[in-house]
Amino acid sequence: MEMKLLQQIHSPEDLRSLDDRQLKALTGEIRETIVDTVSQNGGHLASNLGAVELTLAMHLEFESPKDSFVWDVGHQVYTHKLLTGRYEQFHTLRQNGGLSGFPNPEESEHDTFAAGHSGASIAAGYGLSVAKTLEGDPSYTVAVIGDGSFTGGLVYEALNNAGHENTKLIVVLNDNEMSISPNVGSLAMYLAAIRTNPGYYLFKDEVKNTLEKLPVVGDAAVKGIVGVKKFLKDRLYQSNMFEDMGFNYMGPIDGHDLDALRDAFKGAKTIDGPVILHVRTMKGKGYLPAEENPSKFHGIGSFDRNTGETPAGGTNFSAEFGKALCTFAEQDEHIVAITAAMALGTGLEEYAKRFPDRFFDVGIAEEFAVTFAGGMAKGGLIPVFAVYSTFLQRTYDEIVHDVAMQNQKVVLAIDRAGFVGDDGRSHQGIFDLAFLRTIPNSVIYSPSTYKGVGQFLYRALYDDGKVIAVRYPRGKQGYIPDDFNQNTYDDYTVLDGEEYYAGTPMESRKPDACLVTFGSLFPEAAKARDELKDAGKRVRIIKLNKVWPINEGAVKAALDCDRVLFYEEGAKSGGIGENYGYQLLQHKFEGEYRYIAVDNTFVHHAKQDALRAEFGIDAASMVRDVKGGDHESE
Amino acid sequence: MEMKLLQQIHSPEDLRSLDDRQLKALTGEIRETIVDTVSQNGGHLASNLGAVELTLAMHLEFESPKDSFVWDVGHQVYTHKLLTGRYEQFHTLRQNGGLSGFPNPEESEHDTFAAGHSGASIAAGYGLSVAKTLEGDPSYTVAVIGDGSFTGGLVYEALNNAGHENTKLIVVLNDNEMSISPNVGSLAMYLAAIRTNPGYYLFKDEVKNTLEKLPVVGDAAVKGIVGVKKFLKDRLYQSNMFEDMGFNYMGPIDGHDLDALRDAFKGAKTIDGPVILHVRTMKGKGYLPAEENPSKFHGIGSFDRNTGETPAGGTNFSAEFGKALCTFAEQDEHIVAITAAMALGTGLEEYAKRFPDRFFDVGIAEEFAVTFAGGMAKGGLIPVFAVYSTFLQRTYDEIVHDVAMQNQKVVLAIDRAGFVGDDGRSHQGIFDLAFLRTIPNSVIYSPSTYKGVGQFLYRALYDDGKVIAVRYPRGKQGYIPDDFNQNTYDDYTVLDGEEYYAGTPMESRKPDACLVTFGSLFPEAAKARDELKDAGKRVRIIKLNKVWPINEGAVKAALDCDRVLFYEEGAKSGGIGENYGYQLLQHKFEGEYRYIAVDNTFVHHAKQDALRAEFGIDAASMVRDVKGGDHESE
Repeated sequence: MEMKLLQQIHSPEDLRSLDDRQLKALTGEIRETIVDTVSQNGGHLASNLGAVELTLAMHLEFESPKDSFVWDVGHQVYTHKLLTGRYEQFHTLRQNGGLSGFPNPEESEHDTFAAGHSGASIAAGYGLSVAKTLEGDPSYTVAVIGDGSFTGGLVYEALNNAGHENTKLIVVLNDNEMSISPNVGSLAMYLAAIRTNPGYYLFKDEVKNTLEKLPVVGDAAVKGIVGVKKFLKDRLYQSNMFEDMGFNYMGPIDGHDLDALRDAFKGAKTIDGPVILHVRTMKGKGYLPAEENPSKFHGIGSFDRNTGETPAGGTNFSAEFGKALCTFAEQDEHIVAITAAMALGTGLEEYAKRFPDRFFDVGIAEEFAVTFAGGMAKGGLIPVFAVYSTFLQRTYDEIVHDVAMQNQKVVLAIDRAGFVGDDGRSHQGIFDLAFLRTIPNSVIYSPSTYKGVGQFLYRALYDDGKVIAVRYPRGKQGYIPDDFNQNTYDDYTVLDGEEYYAGTPMESRKPDACLVTFGSLFPEAAKARDELKDAGKRVRIIKLNKVWPINEGAVKAALDCDRVLFYEEGAKSGGIGENYGYQLLQHKFEGEYRYIAVDNTFVHHAKQDALRAEFGIDAASMVRDVKGGDHESE
Repeated sequence: MEMKLLQQIHSPEDLRSLDDRQLKALTGEIRETIVDTVSQNGGHLASNLGAVELTLAMHLEFESPKDSFVWDVGHQVYTHKLLTGRYEQFHTLRQNGGLSGFPNPEESEHDTFAAGHSGASIAAGYGLSVAKTLEGDPSYTVAVIGDGSFTGGLVYEALNNAGHENTKLIVVLNDNEMSISPNVGSLAMYLAAIRTNPGYYLFKDEVKNTLEKLPVVGDAAVKGIVGVKKFLKDRLYQSNMFEDMGFNYMGPIDGHDLDALRDAFKGAKTIDGPVILHVRTMKGKGYLPAEENPSKFHGIGSFDRNTGETPAGGTNFSAEFGKALCTFAEQDEHIVAITAAMALGTGLEEYAKRFPDRFFDVGIAEEFAVTFAGGMAKGGLIPVFAVYSTFLQRTYDEIVHDVAMQNQKVVLAIDRAGFVGDDGRSHQGIFDLAFLRTIPNSVIYSPSTYKGVGQFLYRALYDDGKVIAVRYPRGKQGYIPDDFNQNTYDDYTVLDGEEYYAGTPMESRKPDACLVTFGSLFPEAAKARDELKDAGKRVRIIKLNKVWPINEGAVKAALDCDRVLFYEEGAKSGGIGENYGYQLLQHKFEGEYRYIAVDNTFVHHAKQDALRAEFGIDAASMVRDVKGGDHESE
């Protein structure tokens, strides 16, 4: 299908000349393009298909970038990208060097804030609207946020502050009745109640007719409507929570009715003070497989666009974690599992089915998850919080205050630790090691194998310790050499080549270099060793299994090397390798120590392998480093 | 006044034999004791005086420790301590080795959770109540939380999860109409509306009469009352937000009427599912100076108990920060200041008066404060968030995601960095350096002088950078030697003694040791140098002003020393000194490097000086270390 209209839209200005029929056709083209591209590149499909008309209405009724759009998380931003001059590049979505799958101010002036973590949009948007007010800028700020994000406390803090304040902030509550999975908690029930209460319905025709009857679509007119409605509603129905918090509430609006949306935005613009516009949308709208299974099509890899089928995936670290947890939970009824709206992503679906009484999906509320876990631990349970590394960042203080300081033991199952690939900057799991090890009595395991996930999870469940993390990469297990003992529960493993180098002249030679690493990079070190063996180099691999605290033996094992190279798929400042270097110094190590990690930067989107190469931590980089290439530690 | 009754209360059981007259007298004795002790030791006065009857009623109607009390923050826990066997030790409150000013499970089985940070009690209490449910334990969990804490998102996340769930969780909303200062935001307005709406008042007599009319104080009876009330209220008045979130709401109750409180608890115990009991209390109740000025008597040092007068304090780091910020804000209208309910503590009161349009008190919502600041920065402002180090912990992800990743500049004015003294474990500012420096492009200044706070604040306001922190200690400036140039804006200062050692035989001698440090410990190093000079030792001091990233010059300045000693009033793992050691290794330093900091532990309450001595980072420890004493880095 040729995209006749989309090709002509180079900026939102170009939309203004389209008539109703063309706008309708445009939504079809947008959906075609999104399904097409995501089926090839992977991405967030269902939420983006649900926000087509909403985004189009926003660009018709507001003037971006003068008016600012703030997208929460960013799972609904594809239409916005297509309408703001990025159609031609859209096929590069999530590809290395191509468009990001999330809003990105470096990509376009229409992207106000970068996003990825849930619940920030109202707070950031309110800050921006306050700045505009102080500077006398009369433009609007529109924050678009899903109902799933409303389970997070940051949203509530923002509503509490922005309510009653006189700024031009319009919050669009994009209510698709689920975040990634169907929503949990009282708020979901509350929104459901609003939805079905006819008193809350701002009838499209009511607005439209009244607007049409008046000579000018003016301030006073729409304020009048809203006023009358509130008067009636307050008397006939309850006021709602958003009004209690000082917002003007409008809705629910049918989020696939372009005219209704445009009318609603016209109305919202004329209201003094902050507005919540409640829009009902349908995840996956317009693409049947996604309508029928929105969770599967939330974030997805490539798929067959005709059938919606995805290639068989096989197992991965998340699945192996889930399996292991089921095994242990079967044997010990004190084990409970918590997820923050990520049962599918963290491999807990099977567990949730088998142990429903010991499974807690708390919504997108990671802070609560950790404090809640601290309380459960106090009550004698063994809580396991399964969470992506990047989202664990939200819980630093709760880990300190509500777990470690309480002397309670909570197990953190940290998924997607290290590079996550296509999701990019906001999702990379590069900080967990550095921030967790600042916390007293924290313990961190970082297995490299599926088997290791189970083994070190078991150790974590029954270890002493206050905060015990087991972290594992996104995706699949890499190359594991034969001389690595997969049955180990040890803190570290030294591969010095008793068998590996046997029969070659290298077995008793001092190593040319020690490669120290762990987790996802152990396979890289093993590959590098193979290549270096062929080149006549002898390498000692020191693989950490418990990365924090570092077992002193793992430091001593490097002391007789002249060159020690430490590779880490994480932030360099405060990383494990920095402490390893500090410990080498304590042991009067006098050789060369190089520490290669992510140095003082965020990490863009690209395949994990490409990123490892770029940051100098893949097998090829290790080979170069050992051969004495000129690659410098960043 | 002799405490006749309090002396007889060794556990809550002993309360049960007291008659109404004696209970009344007991509340008087409790207030006397609290005012007495706090006037001598300092502490949290106003909030504790407000919770006397509430706590007494809890201990009469529940059976602690079987029933669990979870105190939010812990500013209201003194009565609880007095009633749970700690009267005899109460004079040791907040003294080194004495009772903590906060709940502390190590002190008593009646203290369920340690506390200090706001908003955790419902989440932790709900976790505990879930554990009890799973284990078939029918006891109650009572979380006591102030209305001020309700401005924080963690509370909302907990309500959202605990609502509608069938656990024996009773939340006491201790509503004194202020947190530390009067509350801000929509929630405060909302609570005010509830308070003044007679429909919400669960009349004491109504409950009492109905209970008395019934033969047994049974489940059905009170459920009936609540049911009828809800029926009427739903029809005549709005349901409230707590009910919307799935809680049974009771209140408001007069929090100084012991009988009303006891009746309310009796009722709450019979209700299925979670309850919110709204109790109105008065901060400072029973001590006139505190009733009249609750903010002053929130957290206070020693004072004259007859007059309420506090000794003149003179200036301190917080005040000097406030003054400097006013000076700069006068000159630049882009500067805005944010506090999370700590205008007084962070020295912003004068600023708030002079620049009301550019001052934002966001409530106890640190996460929001940072994301909001990110939004304001995007709008062209220069936001300064003044916050205690310990509370900044809550914002790790918001700094990463909503400031650093956005390429926005936000200034963090970090007060009470390092040891805070009497408040103890939950309040020590020992993690900020370690967690901030993991964030890309973060910059941290740590001046040691009042003048330096202004200088480096100025540098922060106009530096490039993404997150720029200026951190300073609690309290007063220490000893600053004459040869330190107080006008410096430099990254670091080397005191090698050109003038200081002039006329002694040491001036051209290689130093016996390099002492590297910053902030609050620079005065200690200077004192150590004086003492060591008398002992014939020559010391080079390397003082960091910018502690992150460390200027390479500050590392090179130590390379010719045989002994380099780094002192840090903060967590050792991930601390600045660890990176300094790593950098020494990169420079092939082959001497002795010792790094003395807080090693893998929380820090109890005691005066700052006592803690510095205990952790081996005061002047005397430095002298010992240089003389080669056997004190080991720990």
